[in-house]
Amino acid sequence: MRIPRVPAGVDPTELRGVLDGRWAGVRRRVRELLESERLPPGDGLDTEQHRERVFEQLRWLGGSEVPALGFPTEYGGHGDRGGSVVAMEMLAGNLSLMVKAGVQWGLFGGALTALGTERHHRRHLSSVMDVSLPGCFAMTETGHGSDVQRLATTADFDPETDEFVVHTPDEAARKDYIGNAARHGRLAVVFAQLRTPGADGSPEGHGVHALLVPIRDEAGNPAPGVTLSDCGRKAGLNGVDNGRIVFDHVRVPREALLNRYGDVSPDGTYSSPIDGVNKRFFTMLGTLITGRVSVAGTAGSATKLALEIALRYSDARRQFENPGTGQETPVLDYLAQQRRLLPALATSYALHFAQEELVSTLHDLHTDPGRDPDGRAQRELESRAAGIKAVATWHATRTIQECREACGGAGYLTENQLATLKADTDVFTTFEGDNTVLLQLVAKGLLTNYRGRFEELGTLGMARYVADQFVGTVIERTAARSLVQRLVDAAPNRDEEDVLFDRGWQLRMFEERERHVLDGVARRLRRAGSGEADPFEVFNEAQDHVLRAARAHIDRVVLEAFVAGIDRCTDPEAAGMLERLCDLYALSNIENDRAWFLEHERLSPGRAKSVVQAVNALCARLRPHAVRLVEAFGTPRQWLTAPIATGEQPGLG
Amino acid sequence: MRIPRVPAGVDPTELRGVLDGRWAGVRRRVRELLESERLPPGDGLDTEQHRERVFEQLRWLGGSEVPALGFPTEYGGHGDRGGSVVAMEMLAGNLSLMVKAGVQWGLFGGALTALGTERHHRRHLSSVMDVSLPGCFAMTETGHGSDVQRLATTADFDPETDEFVVHTPDEAARKDYIGNAARHGRLAVVFAQLRTPGADGSPEGHGVHALLVPIRDEAGNPAPGVTLSDCGRKAGLNGVDNGRIVFDHVRVPREALLNRYGDVSPDGTYSSPIDGVNKRFFTMLGTLITGRVSVAGTAGSATKLALEIALRYSDARRQFENPGTGQETPVLDYLAQQRRLLPALATSYALHFAQEELVSTLHDLHTDPGRDPDGRAQRELESRAAGIKAVATWHATRTIQECREACGGAGYLTENQLATLKADTDVFTTFEGDNTVLLQLVAKGLLTNYRGRFEELGTLGMARYVADQFVGTVIERTAARSLVQRLVDAAPNRDEEDVLFDRGWQLRMFEERERHVLDGVARRLRRAGSGEADPFEVFNEAQDHVLRAARAHIDRVVLEAFVAGIDRCTDPEAAGMLERLCDLYALSNIENDRAWFLEHERLSPGRAKSVVQAVNALCARLRPHAVRLVEAFGTPRQWLTAPIATGEQPGLG
Repeated sequence: MRIPRVPAGVDPTELRGVLDGRWAGVRRRVRELLESERLPPGDGLDTEQHRERVFEQLRWLGGSEVPALGFPTEYGGHGDRGGSVVAMEMLAGNLSLMVKAGVQWGLFGGALTALGTERHHRRHLSSVMDVSLPGCFAMTETGHGSDVQRLATTADFDPETDEFVVHTPDEAARKDYIGNAARHGRLAVVFAQLRTPGADGSPEGHGVHALLVPIRDEAGNPAPGVTLSDCGRKAGLNGVDNGRIVFDHVRVPREALLNRYGDVSPDGTYSSPIDGVNKRFFTMLGTLITGRVSVAGTAGSATKLALEIALRYSDARRQFENPGTGQETPVLDYLAQQRRLLPALATSYALHFAQEELVSTLHDLHTDPGRDPDGRAQRELESRAAGIKAVATWHATRTIQECREACGGAGYLTENQLATLKADTDVFTTFEGDNTVLLQLVAKGLLTNYRGRFEELGTLGMARYVADQFVGTVIERTAARSLVQRLVDAAPNRDEEDVLFDRGWQLRMFEERERHVLDGVARRLRRAGSGEADPFEVFNEAQDHVLRAARAHIDRVVLEAFVAGIDRCTDPEAAGMLERLCDLYALSNIENDRAWFLEHERLSPGRAKSVVQAVNALCARLRPHAVRLVEAFGTPRQWLTAPIATGEQPGLG
Repeated sequence: MRIPRVPAGVDPTELRGVLDGRWAGVRRRVRELLESERLPPGDGLDTEQHRERVFEQLRWLGGSEVPALGFPTEYGGHGDRGGSVVAMEMLAGNLSLMVKAGVQWGLFGGALTALGTERHHRRHLSSVMDVSLPGCFAMTETGHGSDVQRLATTADFDPETDEFVVHTPDEAARKDYIGNAARHGRLAVVFAQLRTPGADGSPEGHGVHALLVPIRDEAGNPAPGVTLSDCGRKAGLNGVDNGRIVFDHVRVPREALLNRYGDVSPDGTYSSPIDGVNKRFFTMLGTLITGRVSVAGTAGSATKLALEIALRYSDARRQFENPGTGQETPVLDYLAQQRRLLPALATSYALHFAQEELVSTLHDLHTDPGRDPDGRAQRELESRAAGIKAVATWHATRTIQECREACGGAGYLTENQLATLKADTDVFTTFEGDNTVLLQLVAKGLLTNYRGRFEELGTLGMARYVADQFVGTVIERTAARSLVQRLVDAAPNRDEEDVLFDRGWQLRMFEERERHVLDGVARRLRRAGSGEADPFEVFNEAQDHVLRAARAHIDRVVLEAFVAGIDRCTDPEAAGMLERLCDLYALSNIENDRAWFLEHERLSPGRAKSVVQAVNALCARLRPHAVRLVEAFGTPRQWLTAPIATGEQPGLG
């Protein structure tokens, strides 16, 4: 097998430049900031000490440029949505701090900004930024996490007193897992079913809305009618004080309603610029996707740090004598160790470019919403954010686990960081949207071609829509459109030699998979819409197929982002290295899914075996560069403390 | 697709009886014991409190029947090796306690028993059992964990004083990760390179031997010349005090040598019943495989507990309305949730029977070693133990992770146990032999047909042996030999309908995979032995292939054990249920590996798709029985405390 050239070396500055991308300035400034102050994670602290440390660190960070980045310029922010996401993901070495910051500025501050109006902004934003007002984002309930439309907390308007009455009707409706609720939060954005008195006096529902409810006074005592409790220890992120909130007919003034998308007048009349309960709710949710994008980015950063630790260790650690040389062999020379770590490294590169593109799209769209008159771009963005969040967080879970195992017993010690990285990131596949649910949203978006907010269409709605409207998959390229088209057009036919390393062939394989899987799902779901069978059963029997469609789509989007990223690279050596990493990403992805390609006769058995050999060969070729390639990500040096990675461990190097 | 019948229900007592198997009596007694005393794990305790609690629990357990089970009857034990393994695995709800017990009785006591002689037994065994003498098993060094033949600690005999001088020559030779070393251990079994003065006065090496070295006095002070330190926090198992030991020319009497396989006379003459440094060392190691078997069993028990939590939750938790019924759907009704948990449940059943068989073989062989005059059975047992340990611990890591994610945010809270189970079991893939290294041992055993202890043949030796001797794979059936043969012979040809559910067809698929992969590896390795190429490179390029061979072998052994287990079941309903679980195990295994079957044209594309459908259909059929099937394992009730599994969580069923 002829493997394309791997450059003899690469200038790390060039590679760093490509990776730093559009927000290189923010990355540089945050790296500098993180050199100026030690922000150690809480290893060895008990829960309360850990929470206090992280709260102190948060207040310190509140004095820096970081929180201001994402807030509107009118209130002292920089209005740099993309920069804000990038800055947050750089906190990956202290994930409790990152999540605490995400709760305060991203979720609490973000909801206040997006769903509130000038009166809320003027009153609160500066104290949100400097953390003098710690807050909560109280959406999830014990009984409903994924299906947030069915939240059961109520907010009834009482025209007599011009107040809302916020209430928890039963135990399953308590707010649960709420960050900042157990200790520090004072004000909460509470999502509740908004009701006004109807004509006959019985309450009339307007769907889920958000209100500002004080939950704790400055001395830390719960507000009247509010019962706060503690979720206790978690697998990780123990520097974040997750808690539960129960409301017993808590009264807040009418102005507490975050009223951008729905308001109540003093006489109890409800009004909204958006018709329809569902459409309104999903419009509100749509404004909050920054959190999801941020989780994807942070998952990526944590994975890069884990890979750096494992690769540095594997490069230096020797075990078993090579009888030919009499020397013990560095464990990264073993194929099995390479296979554990190097395809994951290539995937981290791929996801890095996909994330950069996602952040750019988010930034541009939210900075200038006028670009998107019919809301289609926003719906595509929501779908992309959901899918990349799912793929990036599963990649984190698997890769950090692999890194732990690849470092043996040393990987199990807290001092070597992998244990904490694993435990802290483990909930990323769950929070900001359960990954399985998110991939279903992606599939719905594809099947309905982003027509209407896809969440509005429940299972049945989607099926009916598909039955009526779906006319066949159109692969819409997402990045470097003309380049990708050119590559695909120029791809040799599949029987030619060495086609595996042809980028056009790889792109075509990804595209064909997506098209075929999606067409198949559409065919199956039409049955549900046709009324022949029980729609739930038809949907449920196809659920694995639906998830596969979403996955195939996102994999293609990621590959295109990688191709576009290489195209932006002007240094030939750096580009050459990226080309081989892109080969490894594409081919290891095809390898993992080669059962599908074989079943659908997109790969012959012989070609499938060649894919495995190509992955092995690429691992061997990239192995000498592994440490430099992972350093190029530019993880802030304060996060790299593991003795097995810093040279302090005896017997290494 | 016609799915074979699933019984309408099953008598849990019948199923429990089959699963409890040969050591049902021990299981019953340990269940009763675990009802008599609360042994809570250390959630929320700090490291020192946790260590003290577990130490107290260990002492309490020392007063029970449990430690005695495995020790020789002459010293108050029961001589029930199998029962001892079974009893230990039942501690899976408090894994720090299990591991602490494993260190004290399994590793420390086990080495003392197996490698020592009457003088050591008489003096120490009773205080090992009642924990008045806490001890360590000091094998691993910072620089060498997997390649223990290269341990660097030295034990030089000094005839002048009739003593050994135990010494740590450099920092990489410090003993590391040693359980009981940081706080409680007083005596250590130390593995060191034994040397006696040679004819010219320079030291002559006899390979690695074990000596008893006091490391701490009763007041807890380190012994003279011994430096003890603490490995600190770990991902999990923080109730076990792992530490490091450095020896500075520590002198111990000649009698401290555990001298069953090698002794030194007062004049410094070395003698051993076994010729050859390697053969001797691996004979010693072979006596210590109980620890490996125990880890496999405990991984199995922890996985069953995790599955019970996740399945009870998934059965009761509802999310998203079924538009057809207006009811919210239990999450276990979703195909995606079934696929996460039910194939894993079936695999846990399969591994349960494989473990039972492994323990039986260990028990019989070690109770009556005369059955095994040429040592072949012992070598097979070592290989089986290595392979099942690897497969069972990876299954644990993956399944517990899946359970955590399947329970969403609730799964992340410590109170719901999955976080602790995940963190505590995570090192199981590493300790008692790194899984990748263990699978290589399995492959070597297969390739050399257990001729000579396979560890003696290094990479090159194996390759040379293969070149000289390997004549083709013989599939030797391991359980229910004649039944398996009958089933395979009666299997329909692959083109018939519904062949997927034919046990003979499944067995043949597993056998053919093993034979084909193994033949392929042998062919590749012959090149290494033939001198044409660099042997390390030939071996290394085939490493993934070598690991696959081992995996294919163990998968087949596990399936045969399941078949044999069903054959022992006399209740038709219980047997019927086990048959379907066995289908699910076999078919989900084939499904996961169907790329291989397709590449090697053992499955047509159409048949491969049918395998996926069959797994889906089995999941749907077994779903109503899931909770009863996981309860049948009989996990002691004290271990099930998760509110999401006990009905204490609001909003569940």
